[in-house]
Amino acid sequence: MNTAITSVVAVDWGTSRLRIWPLDGNGAAKSCHRSDRGMRTVSRDEFEQVLAAQLQQLDVPADTPVIMCGMVGSRQGWQEAPYNSVPCRIDAIAANAVQINDVDRDIRIVPGIANFDAAHPDVMRSEETQLLGLYDMSGSALTGMICMPGSHAKWVRFDKGEVLDFATSMSGELFAALGASSVLQHSLKNAGKQVDPESRVFLDAVSRSLAEPATILTRLFAARPQSLINQVSDDEAAAHISGTIIGQDIAGAIARFAPVHAVSLVGSGHLGALYTKALEIAGLRSTMVDGDELAIQGLSHAARLIWPDRFDPALRVQTQ
Amino acid sequence: MNTAITSVVAVDWGTSRLRIWPLDGNGAAKSCHRSDRGMRTVSRDEFEQVLAAQLQQLDVPADTPVIMCGMVGSRQGWQEAPYNSVPCRIDAIAANAVQINDVDRDIRIVPGIANFDAAHPDVMRSEETQLLGLYDMSGSALTGMICMPGSHAKWVRFDKGEVLDFATSMSGELFAALGASSVLQHSLKNAGKQVDPESRVFLDAVSRSLAEPATILTRLFAARPQSLINQVSDDEAAAHISGTIIGQDIAGAIARFAPVHAVSLVGSGHLGALYTKALEIAGLRSTMVDGDELAIQGLSHAARLIWPDRFDPALRVQTQ
Repeated sequence: MNTAITSVVAVDWGTSRLRIWPLDGNGAAKSCHRSDRGMRTVSRDEFEQVLAAQLQQLDVPADTPVIMCGMVGSRQGWQEAPYNSVPCRIDAIAANAVQINDVDRDIRIVPGIANFDAAHPDVMRSEETQLLGLYDMSGSALTGMICMPGSHAKWVRFDKGEVLDFATSMSGELFAALGASSVLQHSLKNAGKQVDPESRVFLDAVSRSLAEPATILTRLFAARPQSLINQVSDDEAAAHISGTIIGQDIAGAIARFAPVHAVSLVGSGHLGALYTKALEIAGLRSTMVDGDELAIQGLSHAARLIWPDRFDPALRVQTQ
Repeated sequence: MNTAITSVVAVDWGTSRLRIWPLDGNGAAKSCHRSDRGMRTVSRDEFEQVLAAQLQQLDVPADTPVIMCGMVGSRQGWQEAPYNSVPCRIDAIAANAVQINDVDRDIRIVPGIANFDAAHPDVMRSEETQLLGLYDMSGSALTGMICMPGSHAKWVRFDKGEVLDFATSMSGELFAALGASSVLQHSLKNAGKQVDPESRVFLDAVSRSLAEPATILTRLFAARPQSLINQVSDDEAAAHISGTIIGQDIAGAIARFAPVHAVSLVGSGHLGALYTKALEIAGLRSTMVDGDELAIQGLSHAARLIWPDRFDPALRVQTQ
């Protein structure tokens, strides 16, 4: 089989962005294409033509199938891919991918995962595909907690291919909301882009959230009197707020999923470094894997399960 | 003494609004005047003329003194009234009122109160005047916790005329920030104006925050999957978010100031009703007093201490 041709196209279609990776016969990404045609710019009847235009630009033949994940499968998306409910096998999301109706091309959407428990209602869309990628990479060795920082950080309890439970924490979005409109916005807007994960202020703020999670609303506000009283810099205020929120995120996961020992951290770059340090302060070993790589690997895994004949037979997914 | 004339003018000059109460010879407000000339609309050299214009409209003679509180005494205000540090006698803020320089009229600003402890840095400006009013009203009977809900809610440990300690919680501002920019904004914008303090959703959310304060970031987010999964209404989502934040506010105060038994609640109307109910769920008895009344009473108390001759001698403040 010629691995230079595109076997399947993998797509992550979210609210704000559209990413496309043509996969070769080994299931590896040949290239990455980013577009700003996120779902919020696309009306319901435009999905097909927006995707077709992108694929035409990439010279993808009309019979090449497409595997997608993200909000494109939500009720407001192209076609709903109903949530799979925990506990569930992670590879079930590939088997349960929904095929788009009334189009010539074979296009499928990986479903999200939901917790329908009334005490812990929760949903994810797109992170399940990263989980599938992590599973593909790690096999049955993958057991324990998985932390996926972001606007809506996901904490996942995983056991030998099964998603047992998960929780979403609005940590990243809280940081953004305080920067957009609050007494803290001045400090957050004037601070440097990056909080130093080794700074004393960041480390102390993480420790305080772990030690006394009840007082978060007071400790967040404290960035303001700190700057009034102690002439704390905007950078230090941002480090305090970041550490307070990340520490609370971890404290919440420990409270919910105790005991937590080790964590697989799905992240990269600066945010990954902050979480690595904060998890260390909480006494949790972590191993970081890149989230974009996992998205590709998860979509590739799903594609190899759905269309095995389009990939090199020697590299087919083993059903475990 | 003729109590119909204005003895002193009381002013609360905050960031967004300016309120003026001419006081009679008994120290009671004759009327209330509200203006939108809050500090953010006033440049540094305009304070005198803005106030003069307001007083002229009210026919206040040039020799009538003015007592003020609020952000007008901050470093960015008309003239700084440096923070008094806890622990401090509440009536010391009247004795330490700062006289405005280079004006003909006798104008004084009540200072705010600060906590300079590095572990709990905090500041208040204007609430200290309400505390003085509450003290004036209650005398030495006032001992215990005082809760002052708002954008920046204050929790004050008070003992026989002394402010021992206090904490600010950004509860009101968090609610506003989530409504302005977050995945929850849709629900918060579409909900009715008022959360029902007796609703099951509000009560449950308060209880959850008291029981497991570490998980607030997950429980706030849960309003979103609740509406996706359980078709929870926008009103219910708003009640959940309100109860979660108010419950966390109380959980934080209990963690910081334990043991807390009874609370004097400075508030009114709808927010007062929500806090009354939430405090009850936390097992705390509360007595509510109106915040605006306390501001007038506090300014009046300060004025009677500073200019005793301008008030009915029979009603002079007793120094306790």
